[in-house]
Amino acid sequence: MDSINLKSIIEMALAEDVGHGDITTFNLIEAGQQGCGELLAKSPGIIAGLPIAQLVFASLDQDSQFTAYKHDGEKIEPGDKLGMVQGSLRSLLVGERLALNFLQRLSGIATLTNRMVELAGNPAVKILDTRKTTPGLRMLEKYAVRVGGGFNHRFGLYDGAMVKDNHIIAAGGIKEAVQKLKTTIPVTVKIEVEVESLEHMQEALEAGVDIIMLDNMDPALMRQAVELNAGRVMLEASGGVNESNIAVIAATGVDAISLGALTHSVNSLDISFNLIKQDGSIKDQ
Amino acid sequence: MDSINLKSIIEMALAEDVGHGDITTFNLIEAGQQGCGELLAKSPGIIAGLPIAQLVFASLDQDSQFTAYKHDGEKIEPGDKLGMVQGSLRSLLVGERLALNFLQRLSGIATLTNRMVELAGNPAVKILDTRKTTPGLRMLEKYAVRVGGGFNHRFGLYDGAMVKDNHIIAAGGIKEAVQKLKTTIPVTVKIEVEVESLEHMQEALEAGVDIIMLDNMDPALMRQAVELNAGRVMLEASGGVNESNIAVIAATGVDAISLGALTHSVNSLDISFNLIKQDGSIKDQ
Amino acid sequence: MDSINLKSIIEMALAEDVGHGDITTFNLIEAGQQGCGELLAKSPGIIAGLPIAQLVFASLDQDSQFTAYKHDGEKIEPGDKLGMVQGSLRSLLVGERLALNFLQRLSGIATLTNRMVELAGNPAVKILDTRKTTPGLRMLEKYAVRVGGGFNHRFGLYDGAMVKDNHIIAAGGIKEAVQKLKTTIPVTVKIEVEVESLEHMQEALEAGVDIIMLDNMDPALMRQAVELNAGRVMLEASGGVNESNIAVIAATGVDAISLGALTHSVNSLDISFNLIKQDGSIKDQ
Amino acid sequence: MDSINLKSIIEMALAEDVGHGDITTFNLIEAGQQGCGELLAKSPGIIAGLPIAQLVFASLDQDSQFTAYKHDGEKIEPGDKLGMVQGSLRSLLVGERLALNFLQRLSGIATLTNRMVELAGNPAVKILDTRKTTPGLRMLEKYAVRVGGGFNHRFGLYDGAMVKDNHIIAAGGIKEAVQKLKTTIPVTVKIEVEVESLEHMQEALEAGVDIIMLDNMDPALMRQAVELNAGRVMLEASGGVNESNIAVIAATGVDAISLGALTHSVNSLDISFNLIKQDGSIKDQ
Amino acid sequence: MDSINLKSIIEMALAEDVGHGDITTFNLIEAGQQGCGELLAKSPGIIAGLPIAQLVFASLDQDSQFTAYKHDGEKIEPGDKLGMVQGSLRSLLVGERLALNFLQRLSGIATLTNRMVELAGNPAVKILDTRKTTPGLRMLEKYAVRVGGGFNHRFGLYDGAMVKDNHIIAAGGIKEAVQKLKTTIPVTVKIEVEVESLEHMQEALEAGVDIIMLDNMDPALMRQAVELNAGRVMLEASGGVNESNIAVIAATGVDAISLGALTHSVNSLDISFNLIKQDGSIKDQ
Amino acid sequence: MDSINLKSIIEMALAEDVGHGDITTFNLIEAGQQGCGELLAKSPGIIAGLPIAQLVFASLDQDSQFTAYKHDGEKIEPGDKLGMVQGSLRSLLVGERLALNFLQRLSGIATLTNRMVELAGNPAVKILDTRKTTPGLRMLEKYAVRVGGGFNHRFGLYDGAMVKDNHIIAAGGIKEAVQKLKTTIPVTVKIEVEVESLEHMQEALEAGVDIIMLDNMDPALMRQAVELNAGRVMLEASGGVNESNIAVIAATGVDAISLGALTHSVNSLDISFNLIKQDGSIKDQ
Repeated sequence: MDSINLKSIIEMALAEDVGHGDITTFNLIEAGQQGCGELLAKSPGIIAGLPIAQLVFASLDQDSQFTAYKHDGEKIEPGDKLGMVQGSLRSLLVGERLALNFLQRLSGIATLTNRMVELAGNPAVKILDTRKTTPGLRMLEKYAVRVGGGFNHRFGLYDGAMVKDNHIIAAGGIKEAVQKLKTTIPVTVKIEVEVESLEHMQEALEAGVDIIMLDNMDPALMRQAVELNAGRVMLEASGGVNESNIAVIAATGVDAISLGALTHSVNSLDISFNLIKQDGSIKDQ
Repeated sequence: MDSINLKSIIEMALAEDVGHGDITTFNLIEAGQQGCGELLAKSPGIIAGLPIAQLVFASLDQDSQFTAYKHDGEKIEPGDKLGMVQGSLRSLLVGERLALNFLQRLSGIATLTNRMVELAGNPAVKILDTRKTTPGLRMLEKYAVRVGGGFNHRFGLYDGAMVKDNHIIAAGGIKEAVQKLKTTIPVTVKIEVEVESLEHMQEALEAGVDIIMLDNMDPALMRQAVELNAGRVMLEASGGVNESNIAVIAATGVDAISLGALTHSVNSLDISFNLIKQDGSIKDQ
Repeated sequence: MDSINLKSIIEMALAEDVGHGDITTFNLIEAGQQGCGELLAKSPGIIAGLPIAQLVFASLDQDSQFTAYKHDGEKIEPGDKLGMVQGSLRSLLVGERLALNFLQRLSGIATLTNRMVELAGNPAVKILDTRKTTPGLRMLEKYAVRVGGGFNHRFGLYDGAMVKDNHIIAAGGIKEAVQKLKTTIPVTVKIEVEVESLEHMQEALEAGVDIIMLDNMDPALMRQAVELNAGRVMLEASGGVNESNIAVIAATGVDAISLGALTHSVNSLDISFNLIKQDGSIKDQ
Repeated sequence: MDSINLKSIIEMALAEDVGHGDITTFNLIEAGQQGCGELLAKSPGIIAGLPIAQLVFASLDQDSQFTAYKHDGEKIEPGDKLGMVQGSLRSLLVGERLALNFLQRLSGIATLTNRMVELAGNPAVKILDTRKTTPGLRMLEKYAVRVGGGFNHRFGLYDGAMVKDNHIIAAGGIKEAVQKLKTTIPVTVKIEVEVESLEHMQEALEAGVDIIMLDNMDPALMRQAVELNAGRVMLEASGGVNESNIAVIAATGVDAISLGALTHSVNSLDISFNLIKQDGSIKDQ
Repeated sequence: MDSINLKSIIEMALAEDVGHGDITTFNLIEAGQQGCGELLAKSPGIIAGLPIAQLVFASLDQDSQFTAYKHDGEKIEPGDKLGMVQGSLRSLLVGERLALNFLQRLSGIATLTNRMVELAGNPAVKILDTRKTTPGLRMLEKYAVRVGGGFNHRFGLYDGAMVKDNHIIAAGGIKEAVQKLKTTIPVTVKIEVEVESLEHMQEALEAGVDIIMLDNMDPALMRQAVELNAGRVMLEASGGVNESNIAVIAATGVDAISLGALTHSVNSLDISFNLIKQDGSIKDQ
Repeated sequence: MDSINLKSIIEMALAEDVGHGDITTFNLIEAGQQGCGELLAKSPGIIAGLPIAQLVFASLDQDSQFTAYKHDGEKIEPGDKLGMVQGSLRSLLVGERLALNFLQRLSGIATLTNRMVELAGNPAVKILDTRKTTPGLRMLEKYAVRVGGGFNHRFGLYDGAMVKDNHIIAAGGIKEAVQKLKTTIPVTVKIEVEVESLEHMQEALEAGVDIIMLDNMDPALMRQAVELNAGRVMLEASGGVNESNIAVIAATGVDAISLGALTHSVNSLDISFNLIKQDGSIKDQ
């Protein structure tokens, strides 16, 4: 989560919430007053996003001190203290909601990812995210997937070529599409083709792709695909994966399983922020 | 959803996804090729966000034509066609994921809101959202809540004063806090106080607040609060509301019930985008 | 004036003034040279904007030291020293004009507001600003109104509903317009209706509005309106208010008087910036 | 006023006013409803800013039609119709305040400038603005000065070198400062020196400057300066110029007179916007 | 060159050049006046950038008409007409310099790339660019490389993993570094390792990398590397490549040769813009 | 190079290169690890841009320490150490390419400029740049020209009036064009006219211009122009200037010679960045 544009995401989000000012806090709390608050887990899961919570408070009070009691990726239980922040009382009251909005969503993603990894029950199979992320937060959500033990599929349309039906029709065939891409895309980026049958998979293998997505195949067909592949390229199972069938799919021998739900249907992890001290003294400015 | 900054949200989200280019589509699909795609419901719910899907495609191809078959707020069933878009094939392939990311999330929010409205079972009680929204998408998510039959609480820290414990401590009491706000905040904005007991509620009533939030009260206490209020101010129930208890809470006589889950724990509504025509002719440019 | 977007206003304004560089100062003054300057009042009034002057210098030299001799809202006389800044000579020469442009305008607004408050002669009547502010500077100008003893009307079209003739025509009546707004706007925001007659005022009262604007009424009619209202809602007098009639209007019993002139027709308060020391030593970098 | 960044100024100003939405208009006026409004002069002066008013409405409804009945620079009288705009009723109601905020301020500047030009009573003497403009609006305000018959001094620190006391001290003398600038600033930009005595003026003349600013000189001294100059460089009178003394100063023979008040102490010209038609029909979209 | 952020690059570049206005053109040319200009080659090469020239003029006059006589990638000779634009005379005079600045630089890159491709003399060997591009213009410059017949290496630090000495030291070896990356980077992106010896190359092959960069090897060593590789991974020759040695390197059997000079040391291709018609008539506005 | 918008150029360029993250470095190098690197000259020339290299590293690690061993404008030889930076190893690896991209290009410009200055062989003749700069980097490139001993022509269309053929045609003659500009452009900015004959030059002199550009004249004609001018205005030779003819042109007596090549056809100066220390200790955060 060490990125150039993280700061601008936080600034945008603070602008959205604060607008022309926190009319309650700016009018009732003196600028110099200090305070201290704690992040507290209220349900079990995997914590993700503590560094961004820290950045939220720091962007409101650069002298604030954040102490993390857990690190991203750690399992947490209800009642666990996750971190503590000391700073101007104004910055704590203004920032707490945004810090929690990030922290709860990212922890929800990490927790769900981790659950799917465990249900899959096969460390050799990568659990992958998709592009079905919240607009504007992709970088953060894909970070949370990694924190939860998952792997990232491409970040966008630019760092992975993914050939679908319509591309194949336009190019005149899988072979033609792949051939064209090999002469146009950056040499550092892989080519994946989406197939629904073993015939198309065979074409893709012959065309020299790097990854094959098995789209909505049933486990029996997947096993045939694994056999046909014989370890040549990465095989990604996709479509209709859920808690009930992920273990069966993971047992077919595919290399990876992708789930949109990791980022598009997430319950926030319940975390609270409690102000534990409020101090009237004026800090030197 | 008629807003000044909607366009910049879409541009930001497209930039996130497209980056330096869709390396698959730009290399395989000719600029002039046209296509046509349909939005199709795959699960039941309330549709929300068709205008933003239209804007996504329009921002990629200003000559694209979008036809909505449903309007935001309508109940949809699996198999329903929601809308159709004609435009350059490139714009359809580049834009479909983002259009769906918006549409599925907003429809998920509208659907969940609508479910809670129906479970509450009392048209006189407003179901309210909170500030527990996705950073950057608050305006859209609050729109979806309205589409689902809910009402909006404040949009940010600027368009509603909300007095909490720490404000009260700093001001020296509820009365003092409210008095101070009455001389400082814009005259068009209301003052709400969060209370946990009838004593504090009594203080808030005497201080002349506009709204009282009953924080984590049980239904019995809420009924006492309703009696004490005698219709003077809006009473908002908050904390621990869920599908099981919302009807009981709605029956206590409170005016409104707020739920963070409307926006922080949402399952995307399942919607797909299917390209139904792909045309090789070159459009005059 | 503790706000998220203050920094971006200052950066925009500096970019406007400095462009590709201060060709005089950057070529004649060494980067390391230090200096010291004083802000000096040259006419009497109410000072407003010292924190923004400080921020201007800080944004050019983060090591600069600003000492305020007055605080915003204080009465000042010609010859009063308002503050002192020490820092790189370049930053003082580059920033002085912008610091003064902000300070003089905001102090002009505070001074004019204060004058109108005193002319109104009735502490129970709020002197209100309007949306007739300088594009881009509304937050700052409304701050200056508060500093001068005035109150803020809504900050924009988003934090207060204001029903005017055309809204009433479109909705089919005052009652219908208000009813519609009560089911659509955030619950934390008030509804105001603009009326020109007691008949319309009666309709507005029955519709349950929060504020009624008496538009261009003469004092006699205002008094009747006050009587009709009987303390139920806030009454705001608006239109044609000036130094000559504000006391009469304030005596009618209305709760508030709004004046566009507070922000649209302001004489800058005369303040100068004098460099009092210029030091050739090179600061360690 | 034909400039690249005009559009971004308007967008910034609309964002400031509209925020997350015009909660009155968006809830009461249908998107398709059309309307028509007129700009009407309510006091005499020089009109400036009609093109920017047009751009405000166009940025809200690109199909709106604006008809100007006057052109910038024209003298207007109370009752004069200045222009008419037809477009979506929403766009008219949302945009009117911003259109007027620009138009009234710019017309106020043009009117004041024109008054000073007439009071100076000498077409050979240029009336100049300064950098004492509203932060963010310099380009527009300097345009209004030209519309009113005035001339522009430099737009910022980058398009004119202006040597003041502190520069002279740092460089070791007027001659040294000017010499240094001649080898560093762009060859297309002039050098001006601020002087308070004829001795310094003589030094500046010898150094080969392009413009000399006579700072706070009395008319008698100015006349001596004019004589000493003998037409060699442009002479600019500055400091303490007002309605009473501008004619006397203009008669001394200086080439130009600069006044900060042209942009820092301006009364808005009174202009109103009246909706003259409101139409319920739905425009094809 | 079909990209989301192209428009913002052009707007930034126009803002840089036009600033607060083209003081010559805006004062001498009427807004309605029309004109017509031609792009003319003055030296031989490969044309690249015609679409961006078109966009420059379109962003100044959306009604302008651009006709390309050549298409990007075509060989041009001195005297060739490249394209023609009709539009407002102001937009032609304001935009011509920027259009040429883009067109000449991109054509220079395409021409140089094409020359290196021809000198390499081996269609099986890809000529690659690097990250040694002009800050802010990478997407455009890499487009020009493709236009000239070259291939793109990674666009940034995000779409290709490149393991260098310091990464290897930190990870504790090539094997360890590659292993770590295989569990952390997106599955769609390749891993490249930079090696200076066959020993390191052997380690990289065993670690399972996708690409090996032969850093500053002489042709003899490269040939050994090709033999050792036996077609397993892509081999990229890098370092000290120039016009004299590229054919020798291309003959070693490596798959690709990268050259920073393609983008960091480029002579603009000489192209001029000639106004061929200037028309005083006023266009309907 | 002390400018307001330098920081935003660096941030834009870092965003371009880093995107959603440096997938190699962020995954292999610990956040706390420190390192040290040196900038080393590999070819002779004039160094320019050390402060911007420093800013690149500082923007990635504000605690990094940069030590310059040379100052901009100094002559450097292969093997010279130019500077050293200590900071987080991540920031060094992420920033080195961008720091070099700036440094090599700017040093290339300074070196080329210096070469032309020396070839001209006449300190009285100013070597000028043009607007043929890289879009987005004009301020930096013009800085490098000054570092190399050249002078700046106007920065953009806003800080110098330049009358060309089309302006003259539109205005009805040189005299008319100049007259019009004298009443419209800022008084601090000069007027230049482009002429191709002595007749036009005579008209320009009579019109009272400040600078005359002799466009594509041969040296003999230039000498006549110098004679005709008799020292009245600055004469700028332009068009077709190169290494072979610059001395002859400089000897004609013109005041300045402008060359687009100074910024449009530049070889990067060869400079490398070598990490000389890599330290595993964790810095306190």
